[in-house]
Amino acid sequence: MSFKVPRGTQDILPEQTPKWQKVESILRELTHVYRYKEIRTPIFEQTELFQRGVGDTTDIVQKEMYTFEDRGGRSLTLRPEGTASSVRAYVEHKMFGYPDQPVKLSYMGPMFRYERQQAGRYRQFVQFGVEAIGSSDPAIDAEVISLAMDIYQTVGLKDLKLVINSLGDKETREAHRTALIQHFEPSIGEFCMDCQNRLAKNPLRILDCKKDHDHPLMQSAPALTDYLTEASAKYFDQVKQYLDVLGITYVVDPNLVRGLDYYNHTAFEIMSTSDGFGAITTLCGGGRYNGLVEDIGGPDMPGIGFAMSIERLLLALEAEGVELDVEDSLDIYLVAMGDEAKLKSAELMSSFRAKGISADMDYIDRKMKAQMKSADRLSAKFVLVMGESELEEMAVNVKEMATGNQEKVPFAELVTYLLEHK
Amino acid sequence: MSFKVPRGTQDILPEQTPKWQKVESILRELTHVYRYKEIRTPIFEQTELFQRGVGDTTDIVQKEMYTFEDRGGRSLTLRPEGTASSVRAYVEHKMFGYPDQPVKLSYMGPMFRYERQQAGRYRQFVQFGVEAIGSSDPAIDAEVISLAMDIYQTVGLKDLKLVINSLGDKETREAHRTALIQHFEPSIGEFCMDCQNRLAKNPLRILDCKKDHDHPLMQSAPALTDYLTEASAKYFDQVKQYLDVLGITYVVDPNLVRGLDYYNHTAFEIMSTSDGFGAITTLCGGGRYNGLVEDIGGPDMPGIGFAMSIERLLLALEAEGVELDVEDSLDIYLVAMGDEAKLKSAELMSSFRAKGISADMDYIDRKMKAQMKSADRLSAKFVLVMGESELEEMAVNVKEMATGNQEKVPFAELVTYLLEHK
Repeated sequence: MSFKVPRGTQDILPEQTPKWQKVESILRELTHVYRYKEIRTPIFEQTELFQRGVGDTTDIVQKEMYTFEDRGGRSLTLRPEGTASSVRAYVEHKMFGYPDQPVKLSYMGPMFRYERQQAGRYRQFVQFGVEAIGSSDPAIDAEVISLAMDIYQTVGLKDLKLVINSLGDKETREAHRTALIQHFEPSIGEFCMDCQNRLAKNPLRILDCKKDHDHPLMQSAPALTDYLTEASAKYFDQVKQYLDVLGITYVVDPNLVRGLDYYNHTAFEIMSTSDGFGAITTLCGGGRYNGLVEDIGGPDMPGIGFAMSIERLLLALEAEGVELDVEDSLDIYLVAMGDEAKLKSAELMSSFRAKGISADMDYIDRKMKAQMKSADRLSAKFVLVMGESELEEMAVNVKEMATGNQEKVPFAELVTYLLEHK
Repeated sequence: MSFKVPRGTQDILPEQTPKWQKVESILRELTHVYRYKEIRTPIFEQTELFQRGVGDTTDIVQKEMYTFEDRGGRSLTLRPEGTASSVRAYVEHKMFGYPDQPVKLSYMGPMFRYERQQAGRYRQFVQFGVEAIGSSDPAIDAEVISLAMDIYQTVGLKDLKLVINSLGDKETREAHRTALIQHFEPSIGEFCMDCQNRLAKNPLRILDCKKDHDHPLMQSAPALTDYLTEASAKYFDQVKQYLDVLGITYVVDPNLVRGLDYYNHTAFEIMSTSDGFGAITTLCGGGRYNGLVEDIGGPDMPGIGFAMSIERLLLALEAEGVELDVEDSLDIYLVAMGDEAKLKSAELMSSFRAKGISADMDYIDRKMKAQMKSADRLSAKFVLVMGESELEEMAVNVKEMATGNQEKVPFAELVTYLLEHK
């Protein structure tokens, strides 16, 4: 019997985790300076939360959810994204009553979508995201966008493109919706079944269709931006003004709609423009979702956020040839010959580790030469060879691997010596 | 419609996450110095992996798994523990071929068991664990145990009890099994149905029964330690010798058996002895599992590991009244009056954050007094009040909240000033 990682998922192996840890440490640092506090919600939620919070007409809810019943007969779904859960927590824990609004949250963790397998797409993938709930100030839209850009720039990406759009308010969307139906209805037979269904339910999402992407009517479709109400247009102008002040370059794309139903006003995506990058260039997507908090049972509080896939961030780094600066060193390798020397080595090792000095030794009874090879492979900075004479003298040669220099150090002074020299 | 976190799960709120992050940073540091490299396996696995790897007769597999079919009809199970997945990854990625054995792995993440709700037990809980696969050296058993103890001591726990036992080898267990059957069989009718089933399948697990815990035959049951083979006894002695050398205090408890089927030789648990702690006192459990790698389709490689619940670690800290030293400060709060001042504040804030200075401002158009209150509540170290005159002078008063001291600093020199004074 042999077992494999489930289809569409992956193991992140010990060789790869230092990169992940590095990205996480950058995210921790940036969310700290921007003051987006971490929240952790469960891996699964009541299924209805996503039907309500993500939208019944989305691909995610219709085709991609991992839904199951628990032993108590409750319908649960592995979270396909992070916003619905964050908003659920905001409402359940009455964060709308916190004295400091907006409540600025961040999260990071696995999400699950049962998608067709392709490069850069996994059924379990890790998303980092933020939500600022409780403010409809254009300045916070700009802050959220600037945090996303800051993350990519801090990890070292250069080939980035920020695309923004306004989806307007309710009035905007209704006027646009009517115009879209008028535009597509006469030729809707030429579109896929999904689009035909979308026409009545949510014609905006036709623009997001992957199959009919190249249909000529797509290009000539009425742009939402032409239907912006005065208030929406002013809001969008202010967002752009803040982005300008923050020195953030962007492109306005009237066709940017986003795959989730709940967005309004500001919508944005960040793409990789690197040549080496695959067909799916979007790294990050986000936008404003005034109304969602109410949909999920809370008061009428506005919100905005984004989500980014960490797998795609790492792929983009690869495409641009950026190496993350990961630290993965070993300070000490102890080579021990004989049972007594091994016991003493274990004791010394424990005293090193207690002071934050990383250390390792042989655990499979190899000969000295093989142990030395290990020290080499593990790039140990120092090697200590322990045998009978060392036990007698209560001192050991500390060999610096880079230089070959050796110095005899009494056991009792080893920790101090190593802390000074490592 | 209002939504709640699924039964038996919890949100970790922004007020609580700093504690989690602190524990995680201690774990990262300690796994680094002990050289246990992180691996991340998927949240779910093929169901059969756990049937095979955890054991068909265990409560976990029989009663507690979240099992479901994906849209492709595959039976998947949310992982109830971390060892089976780690060993699956070790085998699948042929880590037994790595030049440096043992392969020392660590993991941390959510696990899922459909258990009855009670204090300190969640259906989704977070486990940290390590596995050292590829060595049957008593020194590595001691290392694994010492790492677990080191974690608890580093977070600040004092009321700890380490209990160890040897479950011996195959021969030991067969002799003991026969003795157990002889011991319990005559009176098995007095035991619960689960125990009656266990008698033939796995009588050792009767000793682990929660219901029949107080039956007099439990106390008088033949101890496994009395059936240790010479080799097993020697192995156990050596483990104890290493623990002695490392200065680790332990108690040998012949009744310690562990709830999972796969253990042999060394088994251990760490308990909290704090008065304030609940009925379930176990913080960490672990042991040796020679044979498991083969069961999961790999070569005959020995292994040992442990797992600890982070929720229970935090409960133990609470019970002992230990406060983790968490840093959650805000460097700067900008109070802005008027649209122009707000734009300038956003720009300045961005320059602060770029240098790692945490900063925030008002995003809900409050009056100055309310903004000042926010700065206070958020314990900002410095407050900058931006208005028309500041814009004119291109300088702003930097007020240190702790002292009330103010100093006027030109915009262009703010970053340097704050880096020096924060």
